[in-house]
Amino acid sequence: MRPAAVPPAIITLLTDFGTDSPYVAAMKGVILSINPAATLIDLTHAVPPQDIRHGALVLADVVPWFPAGTIHIAVVDPGVGGSRQILCVEFGPQRCIGPDNGLFSRLARQTPNPRITAVTQPRYWLPRVSATFHGRDVMAPVAAHLSLGLDPLQLGPPLERMIELDWPEVVKVPGEITGRVASVDSFGNLITDIQADRLTDVPTDERLQVLCDEHETRGLFRTYADQPEMTLIALIGSSGCLELAIVGDSAKLMLGVGTGASVTLRWQGP
Amino acid sequence: MRPAAVPPAIITLLTDFGTDSPYVAAMKGVILSINPAATLIDLTHAVPPQDIRHGALVLADVVPWFPAGTIHIAVVDPGVGGSRQILCVEFGPQRCIGPDNGLFSRLARQTPNPRITAVTQPRYWLPRVSATFHGRDVMAPVAAHLSLGLDPLQLGPPLERMIELDWPEVVKVPGEITGRVASVDSFGNLITDIQADRLTDVPTDERLQVLCDEHETRGLFRTYADQPEMTLIALIGSSGCLELAIVGDSAKLMLGVGTGASVTLRWQGP
Amino acid sequence: MRPAAVPPAIITLLTDFGTDSPYVAAMKGVILSINPAATLIDLTHAVPPQDIRHGALVLADVVPWFPAGTIHIAVVDPGVGGSRQILCVEFGPQRCIGPDNGLFSRLARQTPNPRITAVTQPRYWLPRVSATFHGRDVMAPVAAHLSLGLDPLQLGPPLERMIELDWPEVVKVPGEITGRVASVDSFGNLITDIQADRLTDVPTDERLQVLCDEHETRGLFRTYADQPEMTLIALIGSSGCLELAIVGDSAKLMLGVGTGASVTLRWQGP
Repeated sequence: MRPAAVPPAIITLLTDFGTDSPYVAAMKGVILSINPAATLIDLTHAVPPQDIRHGALVLADVVPWFPAGTIHIAVVDPGVGGSRQILCVEFGPQRCIGPDNGLFSRLARQTPNPRITAVTQPRYWLPRVSATFHGRDVMAPVAAHLSLGLDPLQLGPPLERMIELDWPEVVKVPGEITGRVASVDSFGNLITDIQADRLTDVPTDERLQVLCDEHETRGLFRTYADQPEMTLIALIGSSGCLELAIVGDSAKLMLGVGTGASVTLRWQGP
Repeated sequence: MRPAAVPPAIITLLTDFGTDSPYVAAMKGVILSINPAATLIDLTHAVPPQDIRHGALVLADVVPWFPAGTIHIAVVDPGVGGSRQILCVEFGPQRCIGPDNGLFSRLARQTPNPRITAVTQPRYWLPRVSATFHGRDVMAPVAAHLSLGLDPLQLGPPLERMIELDWPEVVKVPGEITGRVASVDSFGNLITDIQADRLTDVPTDERLQVLCDEHETRGLFRTYADQPEMTLIALIGSSGCLELAIVGDSAKLMLGVGTGASVTLRWQGP
Repeated sequence: MRPAAVPPAIITLLTDFGTDSPYVAAMKGVILSINPAATLIDLTHAVPPQDIRHGALVLADVVPWFPAGTIHIAVVDPGVGGSRQILCVEFGPQRCIGPDNGLFSRLARQTPNPRITAVTQPRYWLPRVSATFHGRDVMAPVAAHLSLGLDPLQLGPPLERMIELDWPEVVKVPGEITGRVASVDSFGNLITDIQADRLTDVPTDERLQVLCDEHETRGLFRTYADQPEMTLIALIGSSGCLELAIVGDSAKLMLGVGTGASVTLRWQGP
């Protein structure tokens, strides 16, 4: 086994700049100018422009997989340069930097009562701050200083609350659960907001109807390989939520269904 | 010169998740949680969904350029959660982790008789393994443990063989060689499976006819800059194979030809 | 605070290979084979194929954000394998490696009189150099050797000059400035070549007309959040140049305007 060195600080980046954008590299240059030893990881830069909800869902899915102490910069920031604040939000051992617009409100459902700090102390920003790119001029340098050991309390005053978005609730009544498609992955699988732990008393065999739009399948499968190609199946996906998939193809394209579509589970008996 | 530190462990990732997918970041989070000092490199995440052959060709092209000891995770895995095994395959000093579905069968033509281990020992996996994302739950943690010095023999039992795909052979008769377009690069160049070492006795001047579909060019050129714009040329490309290119444009679009198309070289005399 | 370790060498990569291309990974493998401790950062790989001007603009925007001593490899190289030279160009503390085709001529406007070295000494290249991929076979190993401390003077002879592209000049007369759209970002904002320091004596209120194609807006705003959705506004963007934007939408799509379009500022009085 190799000797353990001092582990490098890890900083991730999520933006809506587009995967092809060189703006992300400018942020990385700023970070490395302050902490050349930082390890930089892209979460995704393909959040649809200004789609805060999409960014919030990706953060909730991916942030928990990182080691304690990781710093996550999130830039989906339609209000840049306006009156919105920039926050440092600590969800247990994960630290997030981003605008106060609901981007962290899905993480807050998983890990309630995060410690919130307003980022107001210009000492840790670039000397010149543009009105349009706080990701580069404020968030990147703040993340780099945190990665060198700065205490978040130095960034500005503590806050009691941040902006929360309304997330539609999954409705459960006897014999029926209704949720919706929360996101679509790159294979076209429809990932719902119905978490596996809501399904403990639901039959997984033929008695269970799964309905989406005018489409129907029965029962829950364990994995994609369990059924023939082109079959519509329901299963618990890798994020722990109910998922609708067409084996070997795109459910999104084949069913003509996208984010927001209603998904209902219905069953008889116990 | 700088003093040489202990070189960090290098882990590469190839998937069919799409370049925009945040699933790759979840894998990176898992790896860094086990080995925070790992250096992570993306090979590509644009393998067409479930296209094992495409993934196999990319691996054979790119893996050999990495330093000895690099660990390559490859996730093109339509059978995830089914009965297919996960393998650790050692091609000389390169170590690959991925499903047993032919993904490494092109590397095996370059470096025969790799050492193969079945990945069956759950001790090195995540505590909870989903049925649909073994890239994150099995392959990523296994790669991270290898990068810390774990012997592949600890992963599970040795295997005699893995699944091999049939790869069409290049046919050579006196005066003629026939192969096919194996891949198309981002410039639209058509890269064939005809390797340069098959061409040692082939004339490179006007006597050589190169035929693809109903299109024809003559002779082999050394590089793209050798001919005027919009000329169809044949040359030995950077992967050491015969390539068809339109100078300054896309041969794929201009010729309407893609992967699988037949390419014939024909010549007279010695 | 963590103890400062020896900072790792940083090498960036910009190419026109496309974000999905595995060719970039081959370059990274070559670099890490020579310097396994290098930190590798992607600037962008989405430069349109062979679009030297686009690459030159991105380099000028992004390179200055990196720490002193960073090495930047730039591969937009339609003349590969022809007579064009490969250069190492030092702009102050930033070092660039790439073909001599104008790719660095926009950086040279920002930082005149760079130190230029012709890369001619094969000792620092791969043993076998292909005719079509000097990014992998020459530039990557040269950058890796520089990152280990090699003096650029060892790469080949000094050069007096490199190829410069003509960049259209912004024209300023009393009461009017004319420039053009230099690039379009991923939000569809139109970024002009009119730098903020040309606007010191220009009114920023209603007296200022900003014209692009048949479209007009008045005054300069500070940021996108200052106006209602779907309003056309002019502002100084994050690269320090005049920018035209549609709040919450794509100016490129809404105005039907792209790179090269003329932009005029007109005003009365002092």
